[in-house]
Amino acid sequence: MIEKSVRPVKLSNIRINDEFWGSYIKLVREQVIPYQWEALNDRVEGADKSYCIQNFRRAAGIEEGEFNGFVFQDSDLYKWIEAAAFSLEMQPDSELEEWADSVIDLMEKAQQPDGYLDTYYILKEPDKRFTNLMNNHELYCMGHMVEAAVAYHNATGKDQMLNIARRFVECGMTHIGPERGKIKGYPGHEVLELALIKLYDLTRDTRYKDFAKYLIDQRGQKPLYFEEEIQKNKNDFGWQNSYNKFQYYQAGLPVREQKVAQGHAVRAVYLYSGMADVAAASDDETLFEACRTLWDNIVNKQMYVTGGIGATSNGEAFTFDYDLPNDTNYAESCASIGLIFFARRMFEISKDARYINVMERVLYNGVISGMSLDGKKFFYVNPLEVDPKACEQDPGKTHIKPERQKWFGCACCPPNIARLLSSIGNYAYEQDRNRLYMNLFVGGEIHTKLKNADLEFKVETNYPWDGKISITNNKPADYELAIRIPDWCEAFTLTSSGKSIPYETERGFAVIKKEFDFGETIVLDLVMETKLIAANPRIREDIGKAAVQRGPLVYCIEENDNGPLLQDIYLDPKEKIHVVYEPKLLGGVNVLTTIAKRISVEDWGDELYRTYKEYTYKDQELRMIPYYAWANRGIGEMIVWVKTFMSRGDVI
Amino acid sequence: MIEKSVRPVKLSNIRINDEFWGSYIKLVREQVIPYQWEALNDRVEGADKSYCIQNFRRAAGIEEGEFNGFVFQDSDLYKWIEAAAFSLEMQPDSELEEWADSVIDLMEKAQQPDGYLDTYYILKEPDKRFTNLMNNHELYCMGHMVEAAVAYHNATGKDQMLNIARRFVECGMTHIGPERGKIKGYPGHEVLELALIKLYDLTRDTRYKDFAKYLIDQRGQKPLYFEEEIQKNKNDFGWQNSYNKFQYYQAGLPVREQKVAQGHAVRAVYLYSGMADVAAASDDETLFEACRTLWDNIVNKQMYVTGGIGATSNGEAFTFDYDLPNDTNYAESCASIGLIFFARRMFEISKDARYINVMERVLYNGVISGMSLDGKKFFYVNPLEVDPKACEQDPGKTHIKPERQKWFGCACCPPNIARLLSSIGNYAYEQDRNRLYMNLFVGGEIHTKLKNADLEFKVETNYPWDGKISITNNKPADYELAIRIPDWCEAFTLTSSGKSIPYETERGFAVIKKEFDFGETIVLDLVMETKLIAANPRIREDIGKAAVQRGPLVYCIEENDNGPLLQDIYLDPKEKIHVVYEPKLLGGVNVLTTIAKRISVEDWGDELYRTYKEYTYKDQELRMIPYYAWANRGIGEMIVWVKTFMSRGDVI
Repeated sequence: MIEKSVRPVKLSNIRINDEFWGSYIKLVREQVIPYQWEALNDRVEGADKSYCIQNFRRAAGIEEGEFNGFVFQDSDLYKWIEAAAFSLEMQPDSELEEWADSVIDLMEKAQQPDGYLDTYYILKEPDKRFTNLMNNHELYCMGHMVEAAVAYHNATGKDQMLNIARRFVECGMTHIGPERGKIKGYPGHEVLELALIKLYDLTRDTRYKDFAKYLIDQRGQKPLYFEEEIQKNKNDFGWQNSYNKFQYYQAGLPVREQKVAQGHAVRAVYLYSGMADVAAASDDETLFEACRTLWDNIVNKQMYVTGGIGATSNGEAFTFDYDLPNDTNYAESCASIGLIFFARRMFEISKDARYINVMERVLYNGVISGMSLDGKKFFYVNPLEVDPKACEQDPGKTHIKPERQKWFGCACCPPNIARLLSSIGNYAYEQDRNRLYMNLFVGGEIHTKLKNADLEFKVETNYPWDGKISITNNKPADYELAIRIPDWCEAFTLTSSGKSIPYETERGFAVIKKEFDFGETIVLDLVMETKLIAANPRIREDIGKAAVQRGPLVYCIEENDNGPLLQDIYLDPKEKIHVVYEPKLLGGVNVLTTIAKRISVEDWGDELYRTYKEYTYKDQELRMIPYYAWANRGIGEMIVWVKTFMSRGDVI
Repeated sequence: MIEKSVRPVKLSNIRINDEFWGSYIKLVREQVIPYQWEALNDRVEGADKSYCIQNFRRAAGIEEGEFNGFVFQDSDLYKWIEAAAFSLEMQPDSELEEWADSVIDLMEKAQQPDGYLDTYYILKEPDKRFTNLMNNHELYCMGHMVEAAVAYHNATGKDQMLNIARRFVECGMTHIGPERGKIKGYPGHEVLELALIKLYDLTRDTRYKDFAKYLIDQRGQKPLYFEEEIQKNKNDFGWQNSYNKFQYYQAGLPVREQKVAQGHAVRAVYLYSGMADVAAASDDETLFEACRTLWDNIVNKQMYVTGGIGATSNGEAFTFDYDLPNDTNYAESCASIGLIFFARRMFEISKDARYINVMERVLYNGVISGMSLDGKKFFYVNPLEVDPKACEQDPGKTHIKPERQKWFGCACCPPNIARLLSSIGNYAYEQDRNRLYMNLFVGGEIHTKLKNADLEFKVETNYPWDGKISITNNKPADYELAIRIPDWCEAFTLTSSGKSIPYETERGFAVIKKEFDFGETIVLDLVMETKLIAANPRIREDIGKAAVQRGPLVYCIEENDNGPLLQDIYLDPKEKIHVVYEPKLLGGVNVLTTIAKRISVEDWGDELYRTYKEYTYKDQELRMIPYYAWANRGIGEMIVWVKTFMSRGDVI
């Protein structure tokens, strides 16, 4: 049976008290959410204007004027509300709640009598609603509205936004669907599918589930709705001459026939998340099988070691298996976030830690790399190799920025990062009938009700800087504690009062089944070694190179520490790598150092080519920092995959 | 004194009888020129239409209709006439001459009463002549017309086209120039500058030289003409937001202040060639110094090992020093040809073989790679690394074609290759007062008059397959024979009847000063070894790799010979490389073979990343073919720079 028997623990039941994530959550609450509120209100100096709330004011008739910004501008507000909701669920904040309520009032005023609410169409093309599902993001904005509404209801118990969202969804359902006379369409940018399942989970109104299932099942069916829409409404089709064509939208084939992740990466993983949701909500084995195939394709063929996805900027898209260039990629922060959504759903259906292993990789690397350490600047694109000269002077690399930007005109990533980080607790803990899953290692306190137990415990850890996690029970309770043993970990101990405790291994989890005593402390000690990672030699860009990983963190080298021409540095796998915690560096990080070798450029004159002879090298102490923290100390080169001396090896 | 004391030997004085070049010249005469004539007349099935001659018919009023094709379409015809002229100069062909005469008649009919002749403006925007020098290629077409007219006059003695061209130039000079009321402009796409010097050399009319000098000196001066033109005529400026801006046209700075080759590569080298011409024609030391600086920048910082230039497809342009990506580059065939023009002029001024060494590299690799071995298909773009999947599915690489194309809508390269190959003799031999320079090694016969001697000799060689060149004098004569000793050659002998003969070394030439006897044979034996080439480690893409070169030929490996995943192959510098001449392969080539090692991909499962360990390898006999001959056996991977085992080396 395909179903989710595992559910996240409510955010309100989790108090995070963690050196690493706590500072992110604090940053999101104290810096990012207020900053983004200012940005949505066009009050940030030197940043591109958002126009987002202005559009709502104008749609509500409170002020005069045109629509401004992208066609999907509304979604920035919804993502912000969702982030605010998660933050409120963890920690009430009356000012923040007032901001949100004020803008929800505005939404209510802007909503049309039939429930319609998309400021672009209200202000700009009121006669053209639902005529360009492929390009114009109405259903995308609807999806984000629904997600935010559900989160805001969960956080505050308030129904106002939920009712707005339900009315908008129902407006959509009167126009789109399988019934005679309705549009046989689906979103060009997916997200509504997964949002509808959230709405169904909350309301148990099966119309939402059925609508989600329709959107999934109808997608890519012949005759192709998007083709008809283009012809009928004379819409543009920018991907006409591309290789992907309708697969840019994951709409060239019925979803169950899609075997390879293709097209716009964010759309893809949002779709796949929705597919997993619908599969679980409707016990659909073939749909879940399609999810598994697409998941495997991503993580086994198309994912960067940082958890980034999307190999090309053109279409912000997947390209093809094993095509993972490091210096022209996209690896959008939002795509990484979407992959985390997909991972969580796959876990909730399968209870398999392998999905959380990927989630952890993505979270600690490709997601948080998107935000500066002060929470004020953001990357869309997360390259694995940067030469600032190329970003400026090679037109094929100008999408790669060597420093994070303040606020984009298209500001999808910053609020998306905010909503993920402020709901991190949901990703850390999930619960089954009588089992608690500890998926991520986050210090703090948690209490929740299982079927036969009320549990309450405290977690103390210095993760990801070391692998020791202490879990102290504050209540005697009989339950199963399933602790994920990360895939990077090759040895661990589980003890209580210094003695090993028994556990069973189940799909990547160590499961402790016992009566926990009051005050009993379980200590998980994950042996955390620095390791070199090799890439499958089908990836042409990474052959002869290694990445460095310690625990969940992928490392990189920066010009700031190591001088320019990073490509001339060779790692020597025989050299020891040292770990030093530097509390003042980059908010406190473990720096890795090793003796590497650097090609002597001085050995060369002006000539570009010469008869081959072995390079001469200089020893260089190489300093490596966590990838997520790069580009926080000015502009310079950076690389993740470092050249490595290859022996001629054993010939087979 | 800056002047050209060296001039090419006339094509009519050279009879080529050479296995390698003879077949190219035959191909150009028998296949390429007739094929292109058909193409210009829109009679090639399955190829894009040219519309070129149709435009002339319409401009001449012989048929009704619009202009079709690119704004520079006329230039295709002129390049074709120039190629035909070179071919006619070597070997008369009445049918070919009739074709050319017929179209010259057409040109005459199309020429306007004031001398104007550009079919785009005549047919499409008659009121807009000379209002968009920056983008619309009028002066570019004028330049190619002049070059063709000079060549056709030299070949046939006929004046008709020469007069047409002079009238057009003079029309241009009435509108453009330093005098009050004239346009203070210059070509957006350079070539007219060098063409005017050809016209001056032929006619000795100094107005042409002065006009060329004006175009060079005025370029990039403030106030910038192009800026004024954009404002005045409301023209588009597509490079507004690019890094290059006006340097796309080499017009952002006065030419003497340009230190780095920048912008559109073909335009750049055509400009630099014109600069060298003007420097020599007007004894301009500062201008020649600028040429030297730009030359050095190209060959020491921005040239591929194949002689290709232009690192990016965006603008078909140079990027920055040491930025030489192999799989996203442009390296347009025409840019290589332009670099050869530049090289010849630098040699003619300096008499230094270093310019010819580059010319040879470009000619044997980056130029002839542009044409298929049957002369029917052409590359614009000459990559050094190709993965056909990427050409199809990675939008950043779709400009890279894995096979040559029939005839492009923009067909600059095919006729440009044709005109170069049919004038190869001009590049092989140049003469000074009493010295003959043998720059390239081409079998055949040559006779020419020097100041004090009539020389006549026969060259026999199997170059580039071996390094032996026999020169048999057919006339006793007292002169200096300066033979270039290629930079790839580390040892050579010069003998007559088995005995060494004395020579002096001068700027890369072995100069024999003697009375040559009738029937005396001088044998130059260049030791031709296969060598590995290393690239300057400032070029990030080539670090840890080697290219293979034998004589002037750069080699590559193809999937056809070596299987897919070429990037997984490691050269072992310690292994011997064998040379085998294979007469039936690719028109007859030396194949190189060696034992290389290939990473065992089978050693990997489905996982994308794993803990690093040494690769295991399989031995593989690697077959290498000359780069110019790649992609003549179907579609597949290709690479020039092959990974190479690096030792940990001596640490300094």
